Amino acid sequence: MQIGIVGLGLMGGSIAQALKEKHTVFAYDRNPDSLQYGLDHQLIHEAAPDIARLAEKAEIIYLCLYPEAIDPFIKSNQKLFRSGTVFIDISGTKVRLVNDVVPLLRDDVDMIFTHPIAGKEKIGIRYADKQIFIGQNYVIVPTPKNTSQHLDLVEGLARDMGFKTVSYLSPDDHDEIIAFTSQLCHVLALALMDSAPRKYPLKKYVGDSFRDLTRVAMINTPLWQELFLDNKPYLMEQIDHLISGLEKYRKAIKNHDRVKLVDMMEKAKHLRMQMEKEVT
Amino acid sequence: MQIGIVGLGLMGGSIAQALKEKHTVFAYDRNPDSLQYGLDHQLIHEAAPDIARLAEKAEIIYLCLYPEAIDPFIKSNQKLFRSGTVFIDISGTKVRLVNDVVPLLRDDVDMIFTHPIAGKEKIGIRYADKQIFIGQNYVIVPTPKNTSQHLDLVEGLARDMGFKTVSYLSPDDHDEIIAFTSQLCHVLALALMDSAPRKYPLKKYVGDSFRDLTRVAMINTPLWQELFLDNKPYLMEQIDHLISGLEKYRKAIKNHDRVKLVDMMEKAKHLRMQMEKEVT
Repeated sequence: MQIGIVGLGLMGGSIAQALKEKHTVFAYDRNPDSLQYGLDHQLIHEAAPDIARLAEKAEIIYLCLYPEAIDPFIKSNQKLFRSGTVFIDISGTKVRLVNDVVPLLRDDVDMIFTHPIAGKEKIGIRYADKQIFIGQNYVIVPTPKNTSQHLDLVEGLARDMGFKTVSYLSPDDHDEIIAFTSQLCHVLALALMDSAPRKYPLKKYVGDSFRDLTRVAMINTPLWQELFLDNKPYLMEQIDHLISGLEKYRKAIKNHDRVKLVDMMEKAKHLRMQMEKEVT
Repeated sequence: MQIGIVGLGLMGGSIAQALKEKHTVFAYDRNPDSLQYGLDHQLIHEAAPDIARLAEKAEIIYLCLYPEAIDPFIKSNQKLFRSGTVFIDISGTKVRLVNDVVPLLRDDVDMIFTHPIAGKEKIGIRYADKQIFIGQNYVIVPTPKNTSQHLDLVEGLARDMGFKTVSYLSPDDHDEIIAFTSQLCHVLALALMDSAPRKYPLKKYVGDSFRDLTRVAMINTPLWQELFLDNKPYLMEQIDHLISGLEKYRKAIKNHDRVKLVDMMEKAKHLRMQMEKEVT
């Protein structure tokens, strides 16, 4: 197929690389250096000098933009695209986006809202790597407008990229579970770094558990502040659940309640081990 | 040197393997299968049938026991050991242990309290692997009784195992910083699993950030409940700090305060990136 990528950063570059073998990949980025890098490193077949040129050529367009840039992109540019064009969103939140963007769409174009649950704590095309998708989870959030033909197409492309599991969720279910598995984990890593006792040189007293746990604190701030705010109600709820969970441990430790502590630990361990077995 | 290991599990087995090339390693474990495994897989030179036999041969004894087993071990067995024997503790907490164990020690033996900050979310000698120590941090918590000769010896052995940084801390400083970098991370991973929304099959909606963050929830419950309870005051303090950190994020998100949010994120990111650069 003729695939267009708008925004050639870490995600756009990785998607381009992952799809380039089976498809023809065009890309547009407002930064010409990123396009040149994509060409030089064989991540894309062709660099489009502007959006009009990309719109002429591509049937499928991956919008690899920050969530708050999707609405203005559609407003300003959808007139350039051919009838039948399928836009694919890859943002980490959905309720706000689906509500705001679907009413903007021309009748003769479609947008499929998806979430490739994969990434890196890095910014920019220099870190693009199709390996980040292998064996991972992909979520599609269908809207009433989406045809099954288009959904199948997008699912097929996710499989081409190497994703193992493709699931379908409503916007609310997506944002609730992702608030937990993704946004909360980032808030947590940041809050943990923030609460570090400042009087010690941390680096001398950490092990792999701490490094793994705080890796995602090396965050793309402009992107993630949007994701946090876009998913505000569910994320606040998940922060509250986690605080309750921490308070349960605090109480059991304070009361020296070994029975309760061991019981909670065994349940959490069991839940995590189940995930391990089934995911990998 | 003639090195004895008491308790041939994940840590004892890994220490044995790491020291075996330069030293002679004897081991005792109450489970004969573990000793046989150690012999079969060339992790140790010799299996001692009982503690008396180990005591006869070894100059240095690594006590690879759960923290609450150290005191009874010393009480029951120190009479068997030669004058001048140096015991090395490897537990993850120190205040309680130093307070309780030092008064029990015979005048003519010494104990060095240390913390190799390395491990695996696995139990038993079958997972022993000297690679877990390479490039990691080691902490020594000296007592007034320790001679500089003995401290140098133990630091040298840590270097032989592959540890990169060896630091010296007081029992209180150790327990405060380790409550943060180690015990809190484990409580956090457990509390996070505990707060998972139960209505979704988690495995379909997680990415590497969630997997990394919760890896340590696959915990050795009997060991870690001791560590949590042994380090109660500092751990409770660190849980409180983390809850405050989460509440700060909750508030900024609730108030849609982008300026505050971005400022907090950038500070946490900076702290984490500093650690990255200096550790690896």
